[in-house]
Amino acid sequence: MGKAIEHDQDGSTVGIVEKQAFTFAEQPNELALESGAGIGPVTIAYESCGTLNKDKTNVILVLHALSGDSHMAGFYKPEDPKPGWWDSMVGPGKGIDTDKYFVICSNILGSCMGSTGPASINPATGQEYAIDFPMITITDMVKAQKELMDHLGIKKILSVIGGSVGGMQVLEWCVRYPEMVVSAVPLATTCRHSALAIAFNEVARQSIMADPNWNNGGYYGGKKPDMGLAIARMIGHITYLSDESMRLKFGRKLQNRSALSFEFGAEFQVESYLQYQGNKFIERFDANSFLYITKAADYFDLAREYGKGSLVKAFSRCQSKFLVISYSSDWLYPTYQSKEMVKAMKKNDMDVSFCEIDAQWGHDAFLLPDSRLDNLISGFLRSLCHDAPAI
Amino acid sequence: MGKAIEHDQDGSTVGIVEKQAFTFAEQPNELALESGAGIGPVTIAYESCGTLNKDKTNVILVLHALSGDSHMAGFYKPEDPKPGWWDSMVGPGKGIDTDKYFVICSNILGSCMGSTGPASINPATGQEYAIDFPMITITDMVKAQKELMDHLGIKKILSVIGGSVGGMQVLEWCVRYPEMVVSAVPLATTCRHSALAIAFNEVARQSIMADPNWNNGGYYGGKKPDMGLAIARMIGHITYLSDESMRLKFGRKLQNRSALSFEFGAEFQVESYLQYQGNKFIERFDANSFLYITKAADYFDLAREYGKGSLVKAFSRCQSKFLVISYSSDWLYPTYQSKEMVKAMKKNDMDVSFCEIDAQWGHDAFLLPDSRLDNLISGFLRSLCHDAPAI
Repeated sequence: MGKAIEHDQDGSTVGIVEKQAFTFAEQPNELALESGAGIGPVTIAYESCGTLNKDKTNVILVLHALSGDSHMAGFYKPEDPKPGWWDSMVGPGKGIDTDKYFVICSNILGSCMGSTGPASINPATGQEYAIDFPMITITDMVKAQKELMDHLGIKKILSVIGGSVGGMQVLEWCVRYPEMVVSAVPLATTCRHSALAIAFNEVARQSIMADPNWNNGGYYGGKKPDMGLAIARMIGHITYLSDESMRLKFGRKLQNRSALSFEFGAEFQVESYLQYQGNKFIERFDANSFLYITKAADYFDLAREYGKGSLVKAFSRCQSKFLVISYSSDWLYPTYQSKEMVKAMKKNDMDVSFCEIDAQWGHDAFLLPDSRLDNLISGFLRSLCHDAPAI
Repeated sequence: MGKAIEHDQDGSTVGIVEKQAFTFAEQPNELALESGAGIGPVTIAYESCGTLNKDKTNVILVLHALSGDSHMAGFYKPEDPKPGWWDSMVGPGKGIDTDKYFVICSNILGSCMGSTGPASINPATGQEYAIDFPMITITDMVKAQKELMDHLGIKKILSVIGGSVGGMQVLEWCVRYPEMVVSAVPLATTCRHSALAIAFNEVARQSIMADPNWNNGGYYGGKKPDMGLAIARMIGHITYLSDESMRLKFGRKLQNRSALSFEFGAEFQVESYLQYQGNKFIERFDANSFLYITKAADYFDLAREYGKGSLVKAFSRCQSKFLVISYSSDWLYPTYQSKEMVKAMKKNDMDVSFCEIDAQWGHDAFLLPDSRLDNLISGFLRSLCHDAPAI
């Protein structure tokens, strides 16, 4: 890792990275899931950048969101048109500085980007799991990540960092494996999925399941439920933006025309944008994975199993130092939800910093290059130095 | 009209009402549409309550929203389980007092509740119009309402009142027929459909058009695109509520179970609610009408044709007195959009009152019984008495 390649815009890239895979829970073992079911074997795809120090104390675990993958930074090959999804944050001298830290990102359980999910082969049948894949939760994703850490011989994580569904995993890490997590940065996330967020996910799922090509999940090898998945993604994209960002980005501008054409189809730019996003998504994502991961997000309620639903009790086991970040125009996981978690942390006398970043780009803001976020995260990580041996 | 029936909860009902129909633009005439196309004949269904005074100066025109109809108040027959959609507002002694005013509500052009729309028979073919129905706009709806007023011999309207898409019609009335409109109450509405609102409508339309039963609009007599329409309605319902109202109404409560069942289907109450709303809608509404009316809403930009998109110029012809009302938790047509129209009105030295009602119920709030709204509207109407002869 680290070989600089030419098309990095700001000259600081982790260079070429390689997707790796770790398989565990091989027969007769299984990963015990929160639902009571089990699954095995489980493969987790992961990537890393930077160099692990000899004491293994400079590990940062980056956790991705719904449709993300392990490819957080760098390029698989020099001719790749785009780097990983968080290349603006992860690299030499960047917010998460790969000159200092060994940064790991793994693909979540249930996804379709290298880790075991509904599109994987069920060893019991030799066919894709499809909807025989067991229901999974954020807890299950984190348990699989813990297996990967054990495999890599990592006992302490300097920081777990992630936004959105990745932020839910951050929180789960801190309450489930408190002794391992030195610090945590949950970004643009929530302690429990709201009725509004569940509602959007449910409509998106209904859209997939209404597509006749979905065929009760059994579409592998046949026509895929592309229309349903595209609509699901369009719904998602609306929730990732904001009224303000859509007004600034699209307003009422027309697409490739100077006057209304009075026909169905994408007359307005915002319609064209959503259709483009929907169509792009179906090329890379599996509809069943979308169903399972959105369900996992909906199930997420950090407090559910910790002391009768009390968030204060849920955090009582935590030993991590926290930096909680929300975005002013994020209406999917609004700032008040971050404040709720900060309040519960403070009641436990935890070391927590909170920042609401003033940004118009809605929920998606956490994925966009922003020097304020870079500075917040790099400063926070530097503040941990007395906890972590120098590299 | 006015025969009291037993099951009116607060004892003040307009009683039994009758749906009527007016047909115009009969061959060889046509109603000229904004798109440049024409349509004829056009039937408009309408209902009225109260008594028209001899000078015809006590007319109030109520304008309904997307999925509404002419049945604003009262009952068609004594055994009807529910009264009209705005029975809480329209009746003897109510906010719009049928002891004083003659209140008319007509079904909008393009709908499926008695007025000409895509499910109507195209005289040129003897078949339903389906997607041969011409594209319509808010202007076209209002032009058809004007024909109805002419037919009824009404030259002055004491007040045009409506919310949401009905509010758009209110605004259109005031700028298109300024000499006819004494006063206007646009509720929970906007002067131009935002990118966010267009986005939701477009995804809803995509959901209908992705349903194979839609069959490019030609589903009459066959299987209807029920799945697509139900999903479209679910999307709509999310936008009619608010984060707060959904939290209070549903939170994370489960539907008919005490623990998560880890299965697809409606586990959470909010999911069950949306599915119920979707399924209820398909029984009464035509999918093609949904497509056309949402397009009309998306096209709505009051300023477009008036002086280079200037809202101030658009209102410059208005002679009406205004009461503009928004709701604090309406994120579909947020308060800032109402303030924008109030500002443009004030720049024209118009007589305008503005009120933001503090309510948690989102966009739907304008349809819910609320004594504050009753008082605002009845007070506003009383203030017009010096303009209107006593009845």
